[in-house]
Amino acid sequence: MRVLVVNCNTSTAMTEGIAAVASAAARPGTVILAVQPSWGVESAEGYYDSFISAAAVLDLLSTTTEEFDAVVMAGFGEHGREGARQLLRVPVVDITEAAAQLACLLGSDYGVVTTVPQAVAPVRDSLRAAGLLQRCVGVRACDIGVLALDADVERTADALAAEGRRLLEAGADVLVLGCAGMAGLDARLEAALGVPVVDGVAAAVALAEALVGLGKNTTAAGPYTPPAVKSRPRWPVGSPAVPPAVAAR
Amino acid sequence: MRVLVVNCNTSTAMTEGIAAVASAAARPGTVILAVQPSWGVESAEGYYDSFISAAAVLDLLSTTTEEFDAVVMAGFGEHGREGARQLLRVPVVDITEAAAQLACLLGSDYGVVTTVPQAVAPVRDSLRAAGLLQRCVGVRACDIGVLALDADVERTADALAAEGRRLLEAGADVLVLGCAGMAGLDARLEAALGVPVVDGVAAAVALAEALVGLGKNTTAAGPYTPPAVKSRPRWPVGSPAVPPAVAAR
Amino acid sequence: MRVLVVNCNTSTAMTEGIAAVASAAARPGTVILAVQPSWGVESAEGYYDSFISAAAVLDLLSTTTEEFDAVVMAGFGEHGREGARQLLRVPVVDITEAAAQLACLLGSDYGVVTTVPQAVAPVRDSLRAAGLLQRCVGVRACDIGVLALDADVERTADALAAEGRRLLEAGADVLVLGCAGMAGLDARLEAALGVPVVDGVAAAVALAEALVGLGKNTTAAGPYTPPAVKSRPRWPVGSPAVPPAVAAR
Amino acid sequence: MRVLVVNCNTSTAMTEGIAAVASAAARPGTVILAVQPSWGVESAEGYYDSFISAAAVLDLLSTTTEEFDAVVMAGFGEHGREGARQLLRVPVVDITEAAAQLACLLGSDYGVVTTVPQAVAPVRDSLRAAGLLQRCVGVRACDIGVLALDADVERTADALAAEGRRLLEAGADVLVLGCAGMAGLDARLEAALGVPVVDGVAAAVALAEALVGLGKNTTAAGPYTPPAVKSRPRWPVGSPAVPPAVAAR
Amino acid sequence: MRVLVVNCNTSTAMTEGIAAVASAAARPGTVILAVQPSWGVESAEGYYDSFISAAAVLDLLSTTTEEFDAVVMAGFGEHGREGARQLLRVPVVDITEAAAQLACLLGSDYGVVTTVPQAVAPVRDSLRAAGLLQRCVGVRACDIGVLALDADVERTADALAAEGRRLLEAGADVLVLGCAGMAGLDARLEAALGVPVVDGVAAAVALAEALVGLGKNTTAAGPYTPPAVKSRPRWPVGSPAVPPAVAAR
Amino acid sequence: MRVLVVNCNTSTAMTEGIAAVASAAARPGTVILAVQPSWGVESAEGYYDSFISAAAVLDLLSTTTEEFDAVVMAGFGEHGREGARQLLRVPVVDITEAAAQLACLLGSDYGVVTTVPQAVAPVRDSLRAAGLLQRCVGVRACDIGVLALDADVERTADALAAEGRRLLEAGADVLVLGCAGMAGLDARLEAALGVPVVDGVAAAVALAEALVGLGKNTTAAGPYTPPAVKSRPRWPVGSPAVPPAVAAR
Repeated sequence: MRVLVVNCNTSTAMTEGIAAVASAAARPGTVILAVQPSWGVESAEGYYDSFISAAAVLDLLSTTTEEFDAVVMAGFGEHGREGARQLLRVPVVDITEAAAQLACLLGSDYGVVTTVPQAVAPVRDSLRAAGLLQRCVGVRACDIGVLALDADVERTADALAAEGRRLLEAGADVLVLGCAGMAGLDARLEAALGVPVVDGVAAAVALAEALVGLGKNTTAAGPYTPPAVKSRPRWPVGSPAVPPAVAAR
Repeated sequence: MRVLVVNCNTSTAMTEGIAAVASAAARPGTVILAVQPSWGVESAEGYYDSFISAAAVLDLLSTTTEEFDAVVMAGFGEHGREGARQLLRVPVVDITEAAAQLACLLGSDYGVVTTVPQAVAPVRDSLRAAGLLQRCVGVRACDIGVLALDADVERTADALAAEGRRLLEAGADVLVLGCAGMAGLDARLEAALGVPVVDGVAAAVALAEALVGLGKNTTAAGPYTPPAVKSRPRWPVGSPAVPPAVAAR
Repeated sequence: MRVLVVNCNTSTAMTEGIAAVASAAARPGTVILAVQPSWGVESAEGYYDSFISAAAVLDLLSTTTEEFDAVVMAGFGEHGREGARQLLRVPVVDITEAAAQLACLLGSDYGVVTTVPQAVAPVRDSLRAAGLLQRCVGVRACDIGVLALDADVERTADALAAEGRRLLEAGADVLVLGCAGMAGLDARLEAALGVPVVDGVAAAVALAEALVGLGKNTTAAGPYTPPAVKSRPRWPVGSPAVPPAVAAR
Repeated sequence: MRVLVVNCNTSTAMTEGIAAVASAAARPGTVILAVQPSWGVESAEGYYDSFISAAAVLDLLSTTTEEFDAVVMAGFGEHGREGARQLLRVPVVDITEAAAQLACLLGSDYGVVTTVPQAVAPVRDSLRAAGLLQRCVGVRACDIGVLALDADVERTADALAAEGRRLLEAGADVLVLGCAGMAGLDARLEAALGVPVVDGVAAAVALAEALVGLGKNTTAAGPYTPPAVKSRPRWPVGSPAVPPAVAAR
Repeated sequence: MRVLVVNCNTSTAMTEGIAAVASAAARPGTVILAVQPSWGVESAEGYYDSFISAAAVLDLLSTTTEEFDAVVMAGFGEHGREGARQLLRVPVVDITEAAAQLACLLGSDYGVVTTVPQAVAPVRDSLRAAGLLQRCVGVRACDIGVLALDADVERTADALAAEGRRLLEAGADVLVLGCAGMAGLDARLEAALGVPVVDGVAAAVALAEALVGLGKNTTAAGPYTPPAVKSRPRWPVGSPAVPPAVAAR
Repeated sequence: MRVLVVNCNTSTAMTEGIAAVASAAARPGTVILAVQPSWGVESAEGYYDSFISAAAVLDLLSTTTEEFDAVVMAGFGEHGREGARQLLRVPVVDITEAAAQLACLLGSDYGVVTTVPQAVAPVRDSLRAAGLLQRCVGVRACDIGVLALDADVERTADALAAEGRRLLEAGADVLVLGCAGMAGLDARLEAALGVPVVDGVAAAVALAEALVGLGKNTTAAGPYTPPAVKSRPRWPVGSPAVPPAVAAR
């Protein structure tokens, strides 16, 4: 099967990191196709970035010619998944909900360590909208920007561990990495803290494969009904012309 | 004072209708500047449209050269307000929360009548994110599209009244019009149903004026901290060039 | 328009302070009529006082011959607003809900600083009944009684700032002054803490004006239906005017 | 032991009915002292009445010279219990919470049948404030006023049974009588509907006896700290004894 | 009347302690019949033990030939009460819900002090299932095992007081003893901390007596309908009497 | 990998059905080992059966000599999973949470169709404990017993479809089969109703494989710490093998 993993930001370096994590998590025979939008934000840190990235990702999904059996939305706490579910009938899995769901199978109460303080509220909103907030002990920021996570891996690991410890003291017994860019650090954190740590990209790939394997598709009823055909002007005159109205895939 | 009222969709006809309602609601001396994004969706009906409109509105707000003292986000149930609050220090009022807030001052339990079924869940999500869902008896769709609301006003009024009655039977004692395009119909609905009916555009303008009058600004702390300076590539090459990185206003 | 601002306690000094804040917040042309009940409590600090003040305020509202277009209930966390909404068709705005509502437009999470510890639970109950508790980070007491707030303004300001800081550390990014007697201190607190601070009296006046401006009235349906005509015996003739102050049994 | 059962309204006929139910429920050796306020409302139906009755009951409790070991607040859905708990160290049991608590021991989900539609929201608020709303399937009004309940007992029983059935259909498996004046009707309703039906007066007496028997007293910490000594002016000397019955403005 | 008090564990010493507390709390004329299952766990500390004890208690209740008017399930935070309510028509009172209910009548917010850390989540789950979690400030573990509570009463009392203080600092004004084995320590804790402390065994006996006195029985509707007649194979003949104590895999 | 799928009841016929569904859902190379307890209940329908089955399943898990990489608890709405997580470090997935989680990835709001009315509340409790209840529109019973599901497949399919329709009318857009014995009927229901339908056994197998594939284990912290070593007496030697089927007292 083919899983389209969509980095929410435009950083090709991050797409590569996400691709690596996704491929490592994928089953043999699953092809990971990692992409990023052609516009938007180079990193999503907070609400403003999130809404821009959501539209950019939906733009990608509505114009791509790729074939795939499932989509992973790789932006932790970022918006857009419900829009993707209108657009597509194949399963769409967002890394925020995926990580929280798997954490809830491994422990009683989970905590999330994310990047910058502005990202805390969007992460919490995403979990609340998903109906997954009840078992969340807290969301903490390690105060390292998305694109700086891999600048000094030791420092990042230490910061994640420090915030992780505070979450454990607050009652968490399992942790979630709150950024697609924290790839690979779940193993380090597990070693440091002695509890399972869930990475959302890996979790989402696994969930996407599960849904495809079960032959399940996104509902076409309710709010996930395909978007109505209408005019959706893309951008100001002088850009490539207005493409045909978007039809659901 | 000047209030920028941003239609979430690209329909200039709707912007005009919104401008009329906003101006009627505004105090003497308040200038209403009604605008719409230059790209996005001609109408927002559901999650997919909502995320596109959110980015388009944020794009407008980050590039406009207009001067204003407050912003009204005129998209009922649509996303984006938290991003606007990062961008701007002036007050930002979304018509969904405004309508619900005022309804909660006029009655014990409110109901929302919106346009199409796909809009119900986004409206509910918006109210939940705003922390205003507890007193909401329900959200019902009159099944008339945003741009069709004014095609046959009698039919629209009847449909709104029918859904409104069902909400009253379910326990609501005050209603909210769930679309910026239902302008002017609150009076008709009040006459038909005998309960107060709140229009979000009017409510938001009034709330915006209240905040400006009180000299209150959006917080710069927490998740509403201005967006970090970074690269936010706008769209593929061949379009108007990439503007300088966005700085907070 | 005329707005009746009802101090929940019998202290004329506080009524004057409230009148000053209300008038400063009001639009030109709005007449503020500040009143206090003729019986009840000299200050409302806790549930016991609250229920007495509620009845006293309702008594005032049911016997007053004043003409007004809206009512502001100026008792933070005090009971009674739903009773006033049965009694009156003009809008009734309680300063607790008004302050919380405006705070929710200015920030993501709000905190309340109130007077004495006994007032914390009633404030929380008021916010919960209003459906506004979800976004409240906490309610803290500065431990200065209502009538002592203006005894030493420096001390009061410092105490409010200290509790405000604790709320900010707990995640609030906007604050609410939890007592009608904290008039004028919102500006000082904003200067000290760098976040918006909402005063309920000012907020409620602004919201009352908004509702009147929009031509909206309290619903006559549901629980706000006017009170049935029945015997409501006021008090036994010849009762002692003022019994000894209450000591707990 | 002596239990003071306080009718929330001024109707001596209702006090007698309450006294009868309370005495029947009480253990041998328990003296029931049934009283009613000397002012207030002849019946409490809705918020307005509730707040007046709360103050009247607190007035009674703060001036009574009776000796008692516990207090029962006999007003279903009426306010005031937290104020009584500040005033008194003996246990205070409100019939709303008592009935709901016992219902929760007898069934999985309970429903409440109360008197008039205006009483529904106050009942729900009382249960929510008590933290007992989660297991409540619904609150329904039989549309018979408090003082009319015993006018035609057959009609009342039928009306209660009809609303009870609707609650059972909605998922309730135990019912609560939502008015102190529904005395004796729990047995009839049990016979008609085949589920346990809890009367709040009986429940509260039993709970009061339980607390006294266990030697437990109301806390003096937190919000139930005794009311501070202060001036609480009772009423202006020479006020009219009984003003005309209130009509809405 | 006769009340069957079922210790959730097999320790006869604990049964004796429970019997003593129950008898002390019972009314004159009430016979306390304290029993324990013939298999299960010698102490219930955590989920695993809880589920075993639940089945053992239900086994006892389904095979006992004793006559009784009510049952008390004496396992704090342990499972099983809903199963007992299917089995029996007489009232069934679990000490967790009983303690929380009475605490809610004595204070505004309660805290629970229990035994070991593994017991915290089951206690919280039990309160949530009962719909009593809203007013719970927290559940803390004193880190002394169930069977060690009476080894050094001074140490136990000190540990309970320490955790109790932390709950009071967190906002509790009444406490609950979170283990049937903390018998008699409520008085000590009250003396040490100055707030009411509720013991679940005593509370449950009192509530059971209240229900029997009121002539109320468990509903036979909904989920408490008697278990269907079916095969429930007990155990394979010839199984080893006592396998080695369980070690985790 | 090897997945131990534990039927919560003793019916070998149901174990076979479960095994078939599990094997069909499993990946190539995954060995499904389907087992059932040696005692307990022949079918679990309601709380009483659930608690017995939980202990029987835990008994199996604590004594089995099988080797496995994950466990699936195949009892919809049945208790026990947290106890299994104390016992085992390998992942444990309960079919209730698995089905709800996957449904939440495929639709906005889900509904559950289960067997008999007594099972509704336990299912709801299980979802609430898992923190998954927010997006559940309802749980409905098709009124066919667990062991009768396959007696007349047409009748069962029709009954499931009827209840499914009512859930869709209530707002669900994805459904969950609320019994391990509804194997194979998800495809039929999807065809009949046009929305995705999730079978818990298949979902749980897929989730178990996902967790094993990701190398994640159950936490050893918090409430899932392995059960303490202690005496857990199994049963009195010489007890009757099978007592008469339980009738309610």
